[in-house]
Amino acid sequence: MLVVMQTGASPEQIAHVIEAIRSLNLTPHPLPGAMRTAIGITGNTGAVDARSLEVIDGVKECIRVTKPFKLASREMHPADTTIPLGMTTIGPGNFTMIAGPCSVENEAMIQQTAEFLMENGVKMLRAGAYKPRTSPYSYQGMGREGLEIFKRVRKRTGIGIVTELMDTENADAVEDATDIIQIGTRNMQNFALLKRVGQARKPVLLKRGMSATLEEWLMSAEYVMAGGNYQVILCERGVRTFSDHSRNTLDLSVIPPCQSLTHLPILVDPSHGTGKRAYVPAMALASLAAGADGLLLEIHPHPDKAMSDGAQSLDFAGFKKLLDSLRKLAVPLGKKMN
Amino acid sequence: MLVVMQTGASPEQIAHVIEAIRSLNLTPHPLPGAMRTAIGITGNTGAVDARSLEVIDGVKECIRVTKPFKLASREMHPADTTIPLGMTTIGPGNFTMIAGPCSVENEAMIQQTAEFLMENGVKMLRAGAYKPRTSPYSYQGMGREGLEIFKRVRKRTGIGIVTELMDTENADAVEDATDIIQIGTRNMQNFALLKRVGQARKPVLLKRGMSATLEEWLMSAEYVMAGGNYQVILCERGVRTFSDHSRNTLDLSVIPPCQSLTHLPILVDPSHGTGKRAYVPAMALASLAAGADGLLLEIHPHPDKAMSDGAQSLDFAGFKKLLDSLRKLAVPLGKKMN
Amino acid sequence: MLVVMQTGASPEQIAHVIEAIRSLNLTPHPLPGAMRTAIGITGNTGAVDARSLEVIDGVKECIRVTKPFKLASREMHPADTTIPLGMTTIGPGNFTMIAGPCSVENEAMIQQTAEFLMENGVKMLRAGAYKPRTSPYSYQGMGREGLEIFKRVRKRTGIGIVTELMDTENADAVEDATDIIQIGTRNMQNFALLKRVGQARKPVLLKRGMSATLEEWLMSAEYVMAGGNYQVILCERGVRTFSDHSRNTLDLSVIPPCQSLTHLPILVDPSHGTGKRAYVPAMALASLAAGADGLLLEIHPHPDKAMSDGAQSLDFAGFKKLLDSLRKLAVPLGKKMN
Amino acid sequence: MLVVMQTGASPEQIAHVIEAIRSLNLTPHPLPGAMRTAIGITGNTGAVDARSLEVIDGVKECIRVTKPFKLASREMHPADTTIPLGMTTIGPGNFTMIAGPCSVENEAMIQQTAEFLMENGVKMLRAGAYKPRTSPYSYQGMGREGLEIFKRVRKRTGIGIVTELMDTENADAVEDATDIIQIGTRNMQNFALLKRVGQARKPVLLKRGMSATLEEWLMSAEYVMAGGNYQVILCERGVRTFSDHSRNTLDLSVIPPCQSLTHLPILVDPSHGTGKRAYVPAMALASLAAGADGLLLEIHPHPDKAMSDGAQSLDFAGFKKLLDSLRKLAVPLGKKMN
Repeated sequence: MLVVMQTGASPEQIAHVIEAIRSLNLTPHPLPGAMRTAIGITGNTGAVDARSLEVIDGVKECIRVTKPFKLASREMHPADTTIPLGMTTIGPGNFTMIAGPCSVENEAMIQQTAEFLMENGVKMLRAGAYKPRTSPYSYQGMGREGLEIFKRVRKRTGIGIVTELMDTENADAVEDATDIIQIGTRNMQNFALLKRVGQARKPVLLKRGMSATLEEWLMSAEYVMAGGNYQVILCERGVRTFSDHSRNTLDLSVIPPCQSLTHLPILVDPSHGTGKRAYVPAMALASLAAGADGLLLEIHPHPDKAMSDGAQSLDFAGFKKLLDSLRKLAVPLGKKMN
Repeated sequence: MLVVMQTGASPEQIAHVIEAIRSLNLTPHPLPGAMRTAIGITGNTGAVDARSLEVIDGVKECIRVTKPFKLASREMHPADTTIPLGMTTIGPGNFTMIAGPCSVENEAMIQQTAEFLMENGVKMLRAGAYKPRTSPYSYQGMGREGLEIFKRVRKRTGIGIVTELMDTENADAVEDATDIIQIGTRNMQNFALLKRVGQARKPVLLKRGMSATLEEWLMSAEYVMAGGNYQVILCERGVRTFSDHSRNTLDLSVIPPCQSLTHLPILVDPSHGTGKRAYVPAMALASLAAGADGLLLEIHPHPDKAMSDGAQSLDFAGFKKLLDSLRKLAVPLGKKMN
Repeated sequence: MLVVMQTGASPEQIAHVIEAIRSLNLTPHPLPGAMRTAIGITGNTGAVDARSLEVIDGVKECIRVTKPFKLASREMHPADTTIPLGMTTIGPGNFTMIAGPCSVENEAMIQQTAEFLMENGVKMLRAGAYKPRTSPYSYQGMGREGLEIFKRVRKRTGIGIVTELMDTENADAVEDATDIIQIGTRNMQNFALLKRVGQARKPVLLKRGMSATLEEWLMSAEYVMAGGNYQVILCERGVRTFSDHSRNTLDLSVIPPCQSLTHLPILVDPSHGTGKRAYVPAMALASLAAGADGLLLEIHPHPDKAMSDGAQSLDFAGFKKLLDSLRKLAVPLGKKMN
Repeated sequence: MLVVMQTGASPEQIAHVIEAIRSLNLTPHPLPGAMRTAIGITGNTGAVDARSLEVIDGVKECIRVTKPFKLASREMHPADTTIPLGMTTIGPGNFTMIAGPCSVENEAMIQQTAEFLMENGVKMLRAGAYKPRTSPYSYQGMGREGLEIFKRVRKRTGIGIVTELMDTENADAVEDATDIIQIGTRNMQNFALLKRVGQARKPVLLKRGMSATLEEWLMSAEYVMAGGNYQVILCERGVRTFSDHSRNTLDLSVIPPCQSLTHLPILVDPSHGTGKRAYVPAMALASLAAGADGLLLEIHPHPDKAMSDGAQSLDFAGFKKLLDSLRKLAVPLGKKMN
């Protein structure tokens, strides 16, 4: 950390700051300059609130230089993380497809979707049994019954399941029914939930919060990892900006800095990211080209009759066409679709 | 809702949309124009996803005209809501102060703060026993022990308590220990938690999410109210924008439209909104002038030694000075400080 | 346009709004509903300010349904626009590269860059003679001398030139020296400048404003086209959001809705969009995959010694490597690099 | 400036950075830490692009500690700037009202408005002769004829005039006709225009750009001041965020940090900031309480018939009522309305 003194700060003020730093068991390094003095700080500054030094008389500002995440940090763990799943693997060299309806509506449609996916080489199905809805009057999902459907379809088809966990009450049940536990965008900083899935033995897919910085997102991953669960998959799904041409602003530009800061894999959800079926294929292809490790996509046998988010779901024909385009694009990028 | 057809949409396409509207048990009203046809929809459109009509061939866009909240809506309930508390009341004509440290650190400092507040005519104390921290390595609060401190201080001084509930596990314990249950900004769309406090018998202070629209915020209030708890207090605490001159962008401009759309009271938290002690008084005065129903403020006996957020906390002398300024300002505004 | 009345609006209030609509020479279509009345409006509503109806007693809100741009609109002109340049063409089927240094620093480096580009099949060079700099104390560009360099290098090498015009004073000189006139992000709504280049006979590359909606951007294109110059090329270069992992947030998600609303070509500038050299290649590949018509890229013979924006410039070796990756990716996408 | 090296950066890499700093005529101060080395830099770093050091091998990031504005900086000029106008003064202790219609529509309405203002103790009238309109098909203002109206009304009534300058062509004419030259939000970084008004002899009212940081805004003020015109008045008018409850998000929270960083006065425009008449009074009162030096307000004799922005204009009765409220509020704040 670096403390920058105001122009004209007195020697007494500087001495007071140096003392305050020492009282935190840190080492101050005064740097007198032409205009002002700065004081470098070394030691374990992770737990220090920069603003607590900023309010001392004569201090202009404090600047933090060390990132506060450790387990998620590539600096600490240079090698890419690989997430082994039953029939497939998320990680370097692969581009993993996860597709399915927004909500599980009945067993037939999940079975039908699972069969369709397996026939087309997609090994992971996503669907929500618990749905986070802005309105209390909107459809809230099938709940436990949906989880039972997942178990039966998984048993019959072998497909892997990704579903969202919204509260600690259902953590055991969801962990039991799925291969990957999804934490939704609205819960990215639901710390009780993050701590709970830190104790789960299934990988966690952590969606980025609607206005989360990359650092905050990685700190939420750190919460899960600090609990002992190192199998975290990040998922960009659009952020909130002034821009009104799509439901959210899909932030593909987060992929390169994310891969530079962390060893965790990153997927993209272009369905929520755009909110419109017609925009999904272009963003799916762009995600692959940008270096993502896979996609989380909404598809539905009959999108116009979907109970939620039909407008952003591809139908089966549209999805097959997109799969074909992705496979062609993966070749020059040296990625293997799975 | 209004469906706008594309220029040159065929009569068959229009007929198809009309049929789709009827199949949702709604009434279509075609409006042929010079350039294009629009179709008005009447009936209960609350549960209809506009985007599901938008993907029908020939449709350009769908526009929703009815707001989806009901219990929180001023249109439904014109009179302002009043929140009776033990020693004070939040609501029309009043400007209610709630102040205290970010975290409960020990019993002495809560007792000291409560005595100071009561002596100065402030009847509500805020402090966190459970703290939502971005980093898993930061101080997470005293937990149950903090709640016991609240009970003892309340008994001794008579002061009312506001504290944050972060998870359903601790709901009973927090409800028991406080006069107002706070839901933090990161949990504004933690729907399991909102449903839980909908069953509580204590008022709920609902902080605005970091990037929540006014409608989403009121929908979250609606979740609490739909559970049967109509005592909801809104609290603006800054939103996330490109702007970097303060910790968040305190959105005082939300107050007039909020008061136009809902009958619920609205407080402002200028401590989190600005993140810097020096900016708090100006924003506190501006909140009063803008029509807010009160303030949620961080104060600390020794801000420089606070375990969290000391940099945005006022000390006792600074708070007394601010109280004095607020009291003078309340007179011409016809508000009573309490 | 649609006027939505408040619940309980009186027949007199409704009649007053109907009259107000008629006085604007428009046709009102009342739509009585269960909860409230809405009034559809047909006629030329382009010039009407929705908010002027919104302030009439009993009106809840006004909703505009027709987009206000015409010449830029794909609805009016379904076929894609093609921009013929001396040696190449921007438009459907092509992916056009435009590369060069941020600023022209001297003749040798522009000559060297032009030769390098031509050798590698790139026919358009970008460089700034006039530089928009946040600080008045930063390097402001070579000005007229830079324009003379462009003319000589163009004559010697045949390469096309793209350079920014910052004011009307230099419009003739810049038009004379370049093949495409660039309007920078800070001038996207400099209407005097837009009107001026509407009279130019060279194509205009219009960068998106830092917080411009898609509609505002297209309205700025409409300004140029309304002046008679139909050769407008759009260029996405990153928008301003809360996100701090890159200099700007490159909004690739604007490409599909942009191509749906307008027939004008769209390029992407990943150099300004990311602000960091290491992130440029991934975003360049993603732009191609997302359907853009080309790239505007910063390259420099010696980025570490560049007078401006060296940190986001690729060196020649890096650019050749990227060109190679783009060429391979263009094949499955059915695009021709030029 | 501070250069932070990566963990494990080699002594050679550190030496290379030290050399690079010296080659910029700056002084490096290496700070070896437990985890990594940082290198403080002293000397005139104003002109150095931090990113140029950031791309050197082994460097993690560069952090700038000195603000790049000088003439606008309170550190350099601690005393508040006062702007003397003919009949009034903007500056410490005063709260200056500037009101009038969005556009000058005819001489009668400007005369009527000026008389009304003077009768009510308001000495400055605002109105646009040149209007920046998003659409080329919207009313663009009366132009030169409007300027002549200003001169005649000023002569007859003595009122001061504020009007917008949109291009350098009309700079002399606008300067001649007004007492304060307004630079609009879309032109905050129109550097050619800023340089031109730097040579004017009238004060400049500089509106904040729609997504301008405080630092960028002050840098634009610095452009004007660097040209020799030190009479700059800042004006907050709402920024662009995700928030959709008002036309823009009025950022009152910029006032305290602005007053801490600069000695220039700051006004607020709650008309553009909110876009709705009903929200203007609350935001006007809040601006006064927040410490602003005055208001720029839209009023119109007949807002429902205004040619532009009628929906955000107060009528005369509404304005008188607001003036009365402001006068009462100014007393406890120790401000004098003028």
